[in-house]
Amino acid sequence: MTNFNSYLEEHRQRFEDDLCELLRIPSVSTDSQYKHEVRQAGEWVANQFRKLQFETELIETAGHPIVYAESPPVEGAPTVLVYGHYDVQPPDPLDEWISPPFEPTCRDGNIYARGATDDKGQMLTHIKSAQAWIETTGKLPLQVKYLIEGEEESGSENLGPFLEIAQERLACDVVVISDCSQFAPGQPAITYGLKGIAYYELRLTGPKQDLHSGSFGGAVSNPINALSRMLAALIDENNRVTIPGFYDDIEPLSDRERQQFAALPFSEQEFKNQIGVEDLSGEIGYTTLERRWARPTYDINGIWGGYQGEGGKTVLPARAGAKFSFRLAPGQVPEQISSALESMLTELCPPGISMELEDMHGAPGIVVSLDSPFMSAAATAIEHGFGRPPVFIREGGTIPVVTEFTEKLGADALLLGWGLDDDNTHSPNEKFCLADFHRGIKASTHLWQELSKIIIDG
Amino acid sequence: MTNFNSYLEEHRQRFEDDLCELLRIPSVSTDSQYKHEVRQAGEWVANQFRKLQFETELIETAGHPIVYAESPPVEGAPTVLVYGHYDVQPPDPLDEWISPPFEPTCRDGNIYARGATDDKGQMLTHIKSAQAWIETTGKLPLQVKYLIEGEEESGSENLGPFLEIAQERLACDVVVISDCSQFAPGQPAITYGLKGIAYYELRLTGPKQDLHSGSFGGAVSNPINALSRMLAALIDENNRVTIPGFYDDIEPLSDRERQQFAALPFSEQEFKNQIGVEDLSGEIGYTTLERRWARPTYDINGIWGGYQGEGGKTVLPARAGAKFSFRLAPGQVPEQISSALESMLTELCPPGISMELEDMHGAPGIVVSLDSPFMSAAATAIEHGFGRPPVFIREGGTIPVVTEFTEKLGADALLLGWGLDDDNTHSPNEKFCLADFHRGIKASTHLWQELSKIIIDG
Repeated sequence: MTNFNSYLEEHRQRFEDDLCELLRIPSVSTDSQYKHEVRQAGEWVANQFRKLQFETELIETAGHPIVYAESPPVEGAPTVLVYGHYDVQPPDPLDEWISPPFEPTCRDGNIYARGATDDKGQMLTHIKSAQAWIETTGKLPLQVKYLIEGEEESGSENLGPFLEIAQERLACDVVVISDCSQFAPGQPAITYGLKGIAYYELRLTGPKQDLHSGSFGGAVSNPINALSRMLAALIDENNRVTIPGFYDDIEPLSDRERQQFAALPFSEQEFKNQIGVEDLSGEIGYTTLERRWARPTYDINGIWGGYQGEGGKTVLPARAGAKFSFRLAPGQVPEQISSALESMLTELCPPGISMELEDMHGAPGIVVSLDSPFMSAAATAIEHGFGRPPVFIREGGTIPVVTEFTEKLGADALLLGWGLDDDNTHSPNEKFCLADFHRGIKASTHLWQELSKIIIDG
Repeated sequence: MTNFNSYLEEHRQRFEDDLCELLRIPSVSTDSQYKHEVRQAGEWVANQFRKLQFETELIETAGHPIVYAESPPVEGAPTVLVYGHYDVQPPDPLDEWISPPFEPTCRDGNIYARGATDDKGQMLTHIKSAQAWIETTGKLPLQVKYLIEGEEESGSENLGPFLEIAQERLACDVVVISDCSQFAPGQPAITYGLKGIAYYELRLTGPKQDLHSGSFGGAVSNPINALSRMLAALIDENNRVTIPGFYDDIEPLSDRERQQFAALPFSEQEFKNQIGVEDLSGEIGYTTLERRWARPTYDINGIWGGYQGEGGKTVLPARAGAKFSFRLAPGQVPEQISSALESMLTELCPPGISMELEDMHGAPGIVVSLDSPFMSAAATAIEHGFGRPPVFIREGGTIPVVTEFTEKLGADALLLGWGLDDDNTHSPNEKFCLADFHRGIKASTHLWQELSKIIIDG
């Protein structure tokens, strides 16, 4: 593999330039005003594959297009499906960015831009590793299929139907995804568990228009009062969700997992410093890592209503609303939670308020077996790329398609995170460590090698 | 008084033109970007008095100027102080106005504009009535002093200090204020009770910046979760405020008052239709009119935090906030409520959240005696102006200075509302019935006559 080393060394600047080019495209998939830019990012990714002579297609959907590409089949070697996404989260709040979100800027060895780590930078490592093989040896040692979507940040609505119809085309032995984090700087990890999600928007309407709180207050339900009461009722003082049956289907953490988590070098003090809080809190009876990685949570993601301007306005508003979501532990079923939630909120909704609950997106969590040969191959490749063997962890984030892949394609999943916890994913000043970008490319280059050695039955 | 009738008839258009001129000035006192326009409105009002040869002054304050004017003293007759305000509420939400808030538009006999009824239109009736006397008989039958401020909608912060230093100049026997409503269309009223107010802004800060709700959710307090919990905890399921001691100092409604309220022709169904709700709700044990006029209330006036845009964003926000206020029954002391509230919120604030509670403004409620000669004079004048005797009511709104007037100047107060309940005060499409504008001018013209007959002791 020495030729790869020198190739990778020589191409560092070119890889970084390519990354910056992609980061400059504001491909915000949840906001329809960026529709054109999302497509532009998809085209950019497709062109990467076309340059490698891979069979490439930009597949239209009801939403944003899916990029699909594949290298030639290799007899006797497994087939890998790389999944990633080229869309990004909205950049708000804009005024908290040190450099503009779509003008990638290098500071202290990191590249700062929306999507730097989630997922443009990480996804690109698996394209650049293929490029390394093609430009060095002329071919890959196994077939790699790429499925890079443009709707991950908006619920991957059109990916499910595509997986359904493209099952044969996507047939593979293992799915590789890099859309999460290392355990710590210098300590790579393989993520074997992810949380699911159930995301809602609740809209309440009271009087037909804003009223004077003096003349009408106290005689008619105030939508913000109602909203705060309804949202607060979903969780108790022990930070346990109060929706009936919410915890029933959770696959509990094993004692072995709890011991493994406890053995990891995790400092609560450093964690507090990192996020800037005096104290932590969460579901009673669990440690911080257990809460973050394996226990369900409830977060209100946005709230609005009434007068938000300067000074005071004595208004009883006509409307209020909120976005909120539950992160689900493996076992919990989003549809069951939606239905129990709707009943509960309907009961909580006070007289004179009409409520609309929108089920925005849902996906179950997942736990992947630690015992597959793919897992060992990935561990070896990561050790080559990062100079250190990975630890095995879980994550609180959700990659809705992982369950669909494992269920529909019958393939194992490898979740190989090159990011870091303080990458400001979904926040202002998102970044990706450039050293990790290059280590990721190197690990991925080795991954194709290691995976190609596995003998596939049947 | 026949000469007034023909004078008032001839000048209808001129009075309406003057009102429109004042309504075109966007004098939003809570928003510093309208500073210039607020002053412009003050100048406009001052010029009205200068044209009548009244001694007139635009008095500078730390905020917006106070307009002060007075007609010549009249020996043997009482002195009246007219209080009003030339500032207005913010016009948001702008997109719900049928015609722009600062382009007065006449529809169905109403003039639509921010400030039409609150308080430019009502306040102007007492200037036009003076104009009627001056232009018809050359003088007023008693001395009228005018105090027209520009900060009523932002808490009248600079009026208190002015009352303190100008006590002698403002000396009077009775204060006249028209900044409230009739009981119903065609049924004028004298308001003998007003609620107080205690208005707050609560700002919560959690992590130093927005976080990914998957990676961090459940391990750190979410400011919106905390906010909804804290705001919801301030009221129970019977719509009783839970702040310790909140109800202790309330002067209870007398049986006679409750009977009087119950005897008024008030239809809950019409009230529901008016505001567009299916059901009413409020503090247990009280009727709708009692809740609106005499019982304390709790309304969240605005709330914000996290992502409010299109689609979903899985963010755990760094900050959240709300504006909320209590309407106070006579007897309740804003300062005591502030201090009990702060203790309670401090206790409710979860780990990892820092809280800032801003006491934005407060004023106690008031009940005025029904037995003064001023009250009978006003009732007679209203019967002349509106063709029907007034009923005696209370109101849920707050005019913070009323207590200060009665306390500092030792004067009785006459709250004579020319507005209507559906005037959309503080809401989009604020209006004032033009017939009531003219009836108000006529009633005020008679008021100077009736009040001038009262013999003042000492």
